[in-house]
Amino acid sequence: MRKGLVIVNTGNGKGKTTAALGILFRSYGRGLRSCVLQFLKAEKSKTGEYLAAQKLGIEWHYCGDGFVFDPEEALSSAEVARAGWEMAKEKIASNDYDLIILDEMIYPLTFGWLKTDQVIDWLKANKPADLHLIITGRNAPQALAEYADLVTEMKEIKHPFHDQKLSAQPGIDF
Amino acid sequence: MRKGLVIVNTGNGKGKTTAALGILFRSYGRGLRSCVLQFLKAEKSKTGEYLAAQKLGIEWHYCGDGFVFDPEEALSSAEVARAGWEMAKEKIASNDYDLIILDEMIYPLTFGWLKTDQVIDWLKANKPADLHLIITGRNAPQALAEYADLVTEMKEIKHPFHDQKLSAQPGIDF
Repeated sequence: MRKGLVIVNTGNGKGKTTAALGILFRSYGRGLRSCVLQFLKAEKSKTGEYLAAQKLGIEWHYCGDGFVFDPEEALSSAEVARAGWEMAKEKIASNDYDLIILDEMIYPLTFGWLKTDQVIDWLKANKPADLHLIITGRNAPQALAEYADLVTEMKEIKHPFHDQKLSAQPGIDF
Repeated sequence: MRKGLVIVNTGNGKGKTTAALGILFRSYGRGLRSCVLQFLKAEKSKTGEYLAAQKLGIEWHYCGDGFVFDPEEALSSAEVARAGWEMAKEKIASNDYDLIILDEMIYPLTFGWLKTDQVIDWLKANKPADLHLIITGRNAPQALAEYADLVTEMKEIKHPFHDQKLSAQPGIDF
């Protein structure tokens, strides 16, 4: 039986976005119709994953303005995130996809830019039953974890950027 | 500075292999030369990730015989794993790659088919400095975690196959 899973990748470690991209890779192998909406990051972020998606014709939308963890200057970022959620709703309701990734969408929830309960209520009412949905970000709200089918916490055990003062490596970290 | 990271994805949760595939996706986007050796799984496993690698011309080797967690019947599986490690050594020493993934190679270590200390000593002596190496599997030995630059534990919080008796979903789980 095909059942659309709601997958949440959370925790303080690496691998939340990365594991979502791994599923995107699998879904590409199986010819699933996929779409990525990436919150917080701005168009100018030409990451390895964005370049790969371009090469493979996988639909990719930036729904951020480059905001990085400064809630004090976040008014316009909040607007951009809300516009991203409006786009996400369109994509989800369209029934045109097998897999939709809402990357880092947990941040707009924890910052209060979007109401977690409203998002979950909307998903319960409108997400097609066979659509797989992946939502990533630190500190997943309890209500989102309860709604999800699969929740994984990525836990940092050892991290070279802290421990060895290494910079992020292209093709590996972004 | 380019520095080849040794990355270990471990823990009891989903996402160890999946996050490695996410890095493979990124590395593909950036045109890195990548190679995957998958331990335990056999050639007949036509997973979504294998199909994607085939489509994209990414080198992929099965270094298993389909063995699944039955150490009692593992003599031939041990031989296959040891042959896999010999191939891994060739690939690593060749300097032909930017990224090599040794997927599920931790199992042959924990089963005692390969000696962890010998593997680490060999890597210390022979891994090219700028080669990224990813090793996945549950229960990473302490010595491997110490050798690695980046260690992430994927921790299962909620899992639908247990909680809802769902079967694995193609394109998502494999």
